[in-house]
Amino acid sequence: MSSLIPVLEIFGPTIQGEGMVIGQKTMFVRTAGCDYRCSWCDSAFTWDGSAKDDIVMMSPEEIYEQLVEIGGKAFNHVTISGGNPALLKNIGELVQLLHENDIKVALETQGSKWQDWLTEIDDLTISPKPPSSEMDTNFSILGDLLERVKNSSVSLKVVVFDEDDLTYAKKIHKLYPDVAFYVQVGNDDTTTEDDQMLISKLLAKYEWLIDQVMNDDEMNNVRVLPQLHTLVWGNKRGV
Amino acid sequence: MSSLIPVLEIFGPTIQGEGMVIGQKTMFVRTAGCDYRCSWCDSAFTWDGSAKDDIVMMSPEEIYEQLVEIGGKAFNHVTISGGNPALLKNIGELVQLLHENDIKVALETQGSKWQDWLTEIDDLTISPKPPSSEMDTNFSILGDLLERVKNSSVSLKVVVFDEDDLTYAKKIHKLYPDVAFYVQVGNDDTTTEDDQMLISKLLAKYEWLIDQVMNDDEMNNVRVLPQLHTLVWGNKRGV
Ligand code: SF4
Ligand code: SF4
Repeated sequence: MSSLIPVLEIFGPTIQGEGMVIGQKTMFVRTAGCDYRCSWCDSAFTWDGSAKDDIVMMSPEEIYEQLVEIGGKAFNHVTISGGNPALLKNIGELVQLLHENDIKVALETQGSKWQDWLTEIDDLTISPKPPSSEMDTNFSILGDLLERVKNSSVSLKVVVFDEDDLTYAKKIHKLYPDVAFYVQVGNDDTTTEDDQMLISKLLAKYEWLIDQVMNDDEMNNVRVLPQLHTLVWGNKRGV
Repeated sequence: MSSLIPVLEIFGPTIQGEGMVIGQKTMFVRTAGCDYRCSWCDSAFTWDGSAKDDIVMMSPEEIYEQLVEIGGKAFNHVTISGGNPALLKNIGELVQLLHENDIKVALETQGSKWQDWLTEIDDLTISPKPPSSEMDTNFSILGDLLERVKNSSVSLKVVVFDEDDLTYAKKIHKLYPDVAFYVQVGNDDTTTEDDQMLISKLLAKYEWLIDQVMNDDEMNNVRVLPQLHTLVWGNKRGV
């Protein structure tokens, strides 16, 4: 029998709204638990206790069955997100099961924990957290992780809210210049239901971030992206 | 002496707003001339005569010099667009010159003409035109082209305005299932200056396109994207 994974949400198919496979049709599996407490976390329910009664302990087989029940035949890509799924050793079994069924797997983690299965991920996003998160990056763990996944399809993504974050992003890019690098507009209003206002604010911030990066000759091989799902669906969950 | 290339715009750095390297910091070189007349062409000035006095005949060296004059050291990626740059045999010399200066090159063409230099492009987007364009696809030329670039970094992109276009997109994806496939929201209002209205309309259309693709099990390994530059800058040119 497989060991169990704490799951908070399974939904899709929808688009991946961020990062290296932005726009990709995918299913989402969201795991519970995080070793960080980012000030602006948009998935705080995965770790702040507010959704603890919704956590379901599922085997990889059960997760796969539920994916098929919800998505039917309309998917061949699954994104595992959190929280920090890299806290969970047995994600490796899920990845293997998905691969056996010809499904590609994307995963995002802040890069604070190593797991051997990280090298098996098809689209791996490492997203170290900038100063505005109020978290500290352990550069030794991050560097070691990036060294070990370097033959995989891996990208670095930094969410940027302000100038300090941008300085941090630049530092990350300089440290690992050969890793595909993404900066993303931060959403600092994750509760508003006024979608019009949110869209205007996020597009203005996106334009600011573009301007900063365009004028900076230390940020050349960089991709600057918004969160597409927030532009389309605002702060709604599970879409 | 190099032969000359008809150039209409050189600008940047800005982001690539579409397709396989969406968000990438890049300079743009727009060439004049197209063998198509798409009904909704957003670059009609490249072929309808309205900008014919702005065309400058430039050597690859002159284009490179102007890129450096405008972009300084703040770029290492250039996107060649049109019109249809694949009408121009001597783009190959420009690509070579850019590569010699450690600059990556992206290029978009509808896939109606072969050029040997197509295999040298770092990010090659082939964008066959759907029925709403009122153009006919020559599938024999397209298929031959895709066969010859298959070891390159190539993607197919279809702009979708309506259901017929979506059917066409599906046909293209089925014919070439191994080529990375993108569908993009069409902008059918390329003159309005009412940005708020345009953004709302484009995001609604984007949501429609997402819905269509998500529910379709013949469109699984697909990426669905908007045009980011239109969301940020509306119909403005040269940004
Ligand atoms: S690492 Fe991610 S899930 Fe964890 S607190 Fe930060 S933003 Fe939230
Ligand atoms: S192929 Fe491109 S440039 Fe040519 S008419 Fe169509 S949209 Fe315009």
